[in-house]
Amino acid sequence: MNWQTLFSQRMSAIEDTDVLKILRLAERPEIISLAGGLPDPAIFLMDEIRDVAAEVLADEGRQALGYGATAGLTSFREFLAEFTTNLGRPTTVPEVVVTTGGIAAIDLVAKVLIDPGDVIIVGEPSYVAALHVFRSYQARFVGVPLDEKGLNPEALENVLSDLKRQGIRPKLIYTVPSFQNPASVTIPEERRRRIVAHGAEYGVPILEDAAYRAIRFEGDAPPMMAALDPQNVILVNTLSKVLNPGMRLGWVAAPKLITDALILAKQGQDQCSSTIGQVMALRMGERGLIAKQTAVAIQTYRRKRDVTLAALDNAMPKQVSWVKPEGGFYTWLTLPKGIDTTQELDRIVEEERVAYVPGSAFHHARKARNHLRLSYSFAADDIIEEGVTRIARFFTQRLNRDAA
Amino acid sequence: MNWQTLFSQRMSAIEDTDVLKILRLAERPEIISLAGGLPDPAIFLMDEIRDVAAEVLADEGRQALGYGATAGLTSFREFLAEFTTNLGRPTTVPEVVVTTGGIAAIDLVAKVLIDPGDVIIVGEPSYVAALHVFRSYQARFVGVPLDEKGLNPEALENVLSDLKRQGIRPKLIYTVPSFQNPASVTIPEERRRRIVAHGAEYGVPILEDAAYRAIRFEGDAPPMMAALDPQNVILVNTLSKVLNPGMRLGWVAAPKLITDALILAKQGQDQCSSTIGQVMALRMGERGLIAKQTAVAIQTYRRKRDVTLAALDNAMPKQVSWVKPEGGFYTWLTLPKGIDTTQELDRIVEEERVAYVPGSAFHHARKARNHLRLSYSFAADDIIEEGVTRIARFFTQRLNRDAA
Repeated sequence: MNWQTLFSQRMSAIEDTDVLKILRLAERPEIISLAGGLPDPAIFLMDEIRDVAAEVLADEGRQALGYGATAGLTSFREFLAEFTTNLGRPTTVPEVVVTTGGIAAIDLVAKVLIDPGDVIIVGEPSYVAALHVFRSYQARFVGVPLDEKGLNPEALENVLSDLKRQGIRPKLIYTVPSFQNPASVTIPEERRRRIVAHGAEYGVPILEDAAYRAIRFEGDAPPMMAALDPQNVILVNTLSKVLNPGMRLGWVAAPKLITDALILAKQGQDQCSSTIGQVMALRMGERGLIAKQTAVAIQTYRRKRDVTLAALDNAMPKQVSWVKPEGGFYTWLTLPKGIDTTQELDRIVEEERVAYVPGSAFHHARKARNHLRLSYSFAADDIIEEGVTRIARFFTQRLNRDAA
Repeated sequence: MNWQTLFSQRMSAIEDTDVLKILRLAERPEIISLAGGLPDPAIFLMDEIRDVAAEVLADEGRQALGYGATAGLTSFREFLAEFTTNLGRPTTVPEVVVTTGGIAAIDLVAKVLIDPGDVIIVGEPSYVAALHVFRSYQARFVGVPLDEKGLNPEALENVLSDLKRQGIRPKLIYTVPSFQNPASVTIPEERRRRIVAHGAEYGVPILEDAAYRAIRFEGDAPPMMAALDPQNVILVNTLSKVLNPGMRLGWVAAPKLITDALILAKQGQDQCSSTIGQVMALRMGERGLIAKQTAVAIQTYRRKRDVTLAALDNAMPKQVSWVKPEGGFYTWLTLPKGIDTTQELDRIVEEERVAYVPGSAFHHARKARNHLRLSYSFAADDIIEEGVTRIARFFTQRLNRDAA
């Protein structure tokens, strides 16, 4: 069988990258990884989860092991509608679709909206897995650079009006407005208002990814874009950061016209999300355990953020700068122009036994080559310190060599 | 926002059908449903599942609640490789991808292979959800009618050579060779050998869906097509029938060139399948609990099959015939030409308060209008009897009215 000639065209858009190959190789125990955005396993409320699992299996185990409705269990959708309402977007049950995590939510939105060649406006940089989803629908990207306040409304409007002049109506503006992955910046309220206004004016929906919103260490949260304009913003969210990723639960909140389409599309994606996961998450939510665990998560990641920033301050050469995150899992480093973090990855893994994700992975056109993302969510405090020290040593030597 | 103009072209291929709307309305407690292919909740080994859940959460709960590798946990892939090997296809770990149920497996295969307009050869009738997946990739269908021995190799070869003459290489031959959903027929070994030979000869891979294979009531199982030709057959399978659907676990076994592509595609589908589900299913499998529950399932569904056949014998008018299933969840009824089971569904739900799935739902071109599928898997024995009696009464009256 000549399989190569059978592959779909979309597969040429999502080829395995060298970066992914190196990061897979770096998953050895002797290598410190500050690459993956994994939750700290220490935050899981194990006693409570054990109790809930036992109760669910005793009380309603046979239903929990069966199929559920494609849109999600009604009781769980009711819970998520209220949860989303409490986040600031008044939401009814028909406006909620349960998904198998956040990526599956983005996949469904793309399935419903994107034809090959359609334009999606993305930040530079953007969440790597969302770019992967959009590539698999053969979207074309138009980038808007981020600054220290995230997506710039003026730059966005320039792009929108440019495209309009070319007769192009983009299908989506994709954004992670709070603690953006990877740049860790948060869009302030005033910018959010202008961004949703531009979306409405140009008839382009905004896909708001609120994955990290709840993990805020300090300061006040600006409103969700979906709260500012519920009719034009599609909200995707996940329980992976506030509860756990192992149950694979996310959701979309959007106007019913959209959720109806998403439910149809989900019949061809996975038919239904984990029933037992939904029943357990519901019970945990009802008992306030999602809020309780979120509080533990915030405390944990705040401490790790502080450890990371102290280590960076302590060890990094002057020419390197980084974002001080107010929440989320990441910091984003800027190295002097000319340093290519993608090229260096191979060598730093080999020589210093430490891994990061290079900036190019997050750029729709593989740029941002003098940036890198550090994740402090998973590693223990002393490992973070050691990892940052190794990265600092590597780039200090690298810069000294350049200077010599 | 004018959302309608934003929808992708694929959405016009998967519009909500009247049949689906009626079946959703029929999900009221006062209506007997012989429509859905749901497992009997009585088969779940609740005590054992409770023990396994408690142990997993105690022993390795923090890992089980985290992210897993996209391809699946290595330990679980090892288990599935052995499981698949025992089914007759010698399988290595890299040849296995864990999926979020069977539909997600079919979705991944379609993502990797199907461009809009590509031809997929399907049985007439075929599994409705697989047709839905393929439609969402804008495939074109070419049908091969089934007979009492399933897919006819001669008819298949005629289709393949016709297409070849037109310069068309189909991307897949989709088949459920054992206890086909919905027609409940099984392809004998000799036909399987000829079908895989035709696939190899014409360079067309076969997508073998083995969902019901393990639920055999009597007789010997013919070999899987994937056992006869592991290099050209992509095997999709699910734990939904032998363990439970609530954990959402399925898998693909295929040559590594294909699974590599599926893993890449899965990064944009749901990133990973339920970690806790995989850990629990692995432990259940290691303790022989999948085999134990399969035995319970076979016993249960065999009894229900017998109840169904007795009720049909007892109540159905002479002009109606049906398949005597040797396994699986369904029987397939043939009514006299001129009876349109799609048209009658609305009325039978209203008048007799019983629901089936009309044949047209399973036909790529919405034909098979004088057929219907009855599922005996979920309803209790007396409910099956009552449901069959109501359907028989309805069509007896309908036929008498025609005769009058």
